[in-house]
Amino acid sequence: MSALEDLLAHERETTALAQVAGRLGWDQETVMPAGAAEQRSEEMAAMEAVLHARRSDPKVGDWLAEASAEDAVGAAQLREIGRAHARATKVPARLASEIARVTSVAQGEWAAARAADDFAGFAPRLAEVVALKREEAAALAGDRTLYDAMLDDYEHGTTAAELDAMFGALRPRLVDLRAAILNGPQPTLPELGRFDEAGQLALASEIAGLFGYDFTRGRIDKAVHPFSSGSGADVRITTRTDPADPFNCLYSTLHEVGHATYEQNIDPDLALTVLGQGASMGVHESQSRLYENQLGRSRAFCGWLHGRLRDRFGDAVPERADTFYALVNRVHAGFIRTEADEVHYNLHVLMRFDLERAMISGDLAVPDLEAAWNERFAADFGAQVDRASNGCLQDVHWSVGLFGYFPTYTIGNLYAGCLFAALKRDLPDLDTDLARGDPGPALLWLRDKVQRNGAVPEPKALIEAATGAAPSAGPLLDYLEAKFGDLYGL
Amino acid sequence: MSALEDLLAHERETTALAQVAGRLGWDQETVMPAGAAEQRSEEMAAMEAVLHARRSDPKVGDWLAEASAEDAVGAAQLREIGRAHARATKVPARLASEIARVTSVAQGEWAAARAADDFAGFAPRLAEVVALKREEAAALAGDRTLYDAMLDDYEHGTTAAELDAMFGALRPRLVDLRAAILNGPQPTLPELGRFDEAGQLALASEIAGLFGYDFTRGRIDKAVHPFSSGSGADVRITTRTDPADPFNCLYSTLHEVGHATYEQNIDPDLALTVLGQGASMGVHESQSRLYENQLGRSRAFCGWLHGRLRDRFGDAVPERADTFYALVNRVHAGFIRTEADEVHYNLHVLMRFDLERAMISGDLAVPDLEAAWNERFAADFGAQVDRASNGCLQDVHWSVGLFGYFPTYTIGNLYAGCLFAALKRDLPDLDTDLARGDPGPALLWLRDKVQRNGAVPEPKALIEAATGAAPSAGPLLDYLEAKFGDLYGL
Repeated sequence: MSALEDLLAHERETTALAQVAGRLGWDQETVMPAGAAEQRSEEMAAMEAVLHARRSDPKVGDWLAEASAEDAVGAAQLREIGRAHARATKVPARLASEIARVTSVAQGEWAAARAADDFAGFAPRLAEVVALKREEAAALAGDRTLYDAMLDDYEHGTTAAELDAMFGALRPRLVDLRAAILNGPQPTLPELGRFDEAGQLALASEIAGLFGYDFTRGRIDKAVHPFSSGSGADVRITTRTDPADPFNCLYSTLHEVGHATYEQNIDPDLALTVLGQGASMGVHESQSRLYENQLGRSRAFCGWLHGRLRDRFGDAVPERADTFYALVNRVHAGFIRTEADEVHYNLHVLMRFDLERAMISGDLAVPDLEAAWNERFAADFGAQVDRASNGCLQDVHWSVGLFGYFPTYTIGNLYAGCLFAALKRDLPDLDTDLARGDPGPALLWLRDKVQRNGAVPEPKALIEAATGAAPSAGPLLDYLEAKFGDLYGL
Repeated sequence: MSALEDLLAHERETTALAQVAGRLGWDQETVMPAGAAEQRSEEMAAMEAVLHARRSDPKVGDWLAEASAEDAVGAAQLREIGRAHARATKVPARLASEIARVTSVAQGEWAAARAADDFAGFAPRLAEVVALKREEAAALAGDRTLYDAMLDDYEHGTTAAELDAMFGALRPRLVDLRAAILNGPQPTLPELGRFDEAGQLALASEIAGLFGYDFTRGRIDKAVHPFSSGSGADVRITTRTDPADPFNCLYSTLHEVGHATYEQNIDPDLALTVLGQGASMGVHESQSRLYENQLGRSRAFCGWLHGRLRDRFGDAVPERADTFYALVNRVHAGFIRTEADEVHYNLHVLMRFDLERAMISGDLAVPDLEAAWNERFAADFGAQVDRASNGCLQDVHWSVGLFGYFPTYTIGNLYAGCLFAALKRDLPDLDTDLARGDPGPALLWLRDKVQRNGAVPEPKALIEAATGAAPSAGPLLDYLEAKFGDLYGL
């Protein structure tokens, strides 16, 4: 066998093992008995040790040095395998295991601190996590900043400076749009009725199928948090229900279907290779947001969905489709990112991006985070944070060391804006299709331009090839201003 | 760290990874999407390769050579780790992977052959499996016979010659008992009514809890075949329901609860070590059979169970408890091992034991298996096999290379006979307890004498320590003759 063949055979097993580790995570969130948590953490750690050892194996380095690619796919394989190998060899095993240990402890302490609204008590542990992640970033950074090294883990090829340019365009127009909406007259919207769980789950499954989710290679289960998990032929999603709010179940399902069908639609020839997954966190999020918002919350599709909900739930749903559309897209102030509407969502992310960069650079000391958070929130959202669980303790990410992760949410939203503008240009009948409950042509467009390629293209190149332009904030802003300008009569 | 500490740390990770591999098996039988089968086989193969590499790691050999145990548990650790290391190093990786590949293909072909009742078409593949397993056994056997080397994989320390002695005592008395029952007058038993699935599953869960199954460290799901899976803090079982036959669900659940509580009751200090599992396949089966039969199908417990079933299912259940007891224990001729009553069950196993030994020794050519099976069945069961799916194609075991596995079922039955005789001697109030639905004292006895010890003692020594006598067939035969003599008025 050639060095390339040896390398790919080794990597195929590594990828299969990574799928197994991912499925353990699914199991933990859906079916694991509560008493198995401690044993499970040892099982996960053992899997991570196996994966780290395989990725940092000196044989991989030798093969990489010797192998040469014959085509673009082969070159992408070498690029991604080389990246994982370089990362695994640069971070000392001692540090990796210390990070795993401390973040595991910190996750439990964060949950307790959030429940007690006690940021000060948690700050020392968070400072320890920040210090360890800085040490890790220093091992990886080379001539980059620490934060750029962190960002690279989730969105390769993107720097904080580039994000500054895109996000800088985003924030003022979002703040203005938000103010214009909330300072204007508010529509009077009716209360929804009650929605039984079985009915919600059945409709969520129907809509998942409508948006191309292949149940022969996936399944939907209930979990506390909705998520998508797995690649290739086994991509599972979870959802949740709230009897007073069917949109929670429906739109979180549609969001996860965006992630999951992305994985399911990747060229099967890439399965069980490093390229058989989404191109980046940002591109992944672009698909989930497109399904959920640009398609799922469009006036055209809401018209069709309104009919289906009326069929199933009767008068629990308002009679008029335009009232329903206004309810689905209601803009309202709130503290919590995961409950935010399309106008507020990215403002939540942008403040996290700025705050985490400041913590990593050392400009913001961890004990000062709560005050900095509350000040920024007041500036962008016009409201005082009342308690830490509504403020800087609301998300788990920082406690478990995920610095550089938050911005990928907004990158995904910007990519979704770019892709949707191109999709509408290419599909003039989009609204007609959506109005009769047929997202098929849009899904085919996304499959062809984005999904089937897996991780062969790098993220920015993928968006540029799909849309004809480099990614920017303009299309998302134009879309939001048009949609909500129309809805709120601005 | 000392060599022993190094070895145990390495082994702990191996055991955790083995738990992960086992859970993949659970996932496959319960929740895996159908389209994931091919990807799953690669995931399983990758996990097996990791486990094999860890067990055969030369470092393990070095540690084993250097390590010395300070107590009985340490000695047992070294014994079991040494055994797994020796096995993994003796079988060439090429052969191990060829066996995995061929048996994987053979499993599908067996299912097709069984559906078509075509043994002749399947025989060449089975012959290939036999040849590969003989080659593997030759690598392992040393100065033992090939079959003894196979048996050692499932019931360490037991030889075919020892089984001949025990099984030789079993067969004639079972054949006589069977003939006496079926040639005598048969009781007139009523038909059962219909039993809804939810009611069956609820009662099965209640009985699982009654027999000590800890749901915080386990769960019950539906699957085509009932099984128990996992060790330590995550031990899951499956069951199935038949609306016309509630005993299928109840007694298969109770059987799996025997396996599962054995795992759950092992000393937590042994968790995630090679000793944190049952002592052997035979000892495992002794627990499942005891729960299912000696306790679960006793006249005393059936009296209590009858009341619970009447409460839940009303007139679908006969009015009289003794009619119910007779139904639960009805002896009836049949072709299928997994549906056999207590009198017939071991006759099914004994014929498989003799036939597989003959195939492995070469005395029976694989193409002649069907004729040999049918001849032996006629001799022991007094009936002509009508088709291969009712005969030599009914079980999957041989197709997937499990030679030496069948006898552990009967070993388990014999061990259950020995243990039950000792348990009754030690617990004179057993029937009183069972009659009020309290298996507690019996469970405590089993926990103390058998379960908590995990794999520290070797199987025969464990039974001898628990009962005061070496294992033999006498106690099971005495129990069966007394129980069914009483029931059938012999």
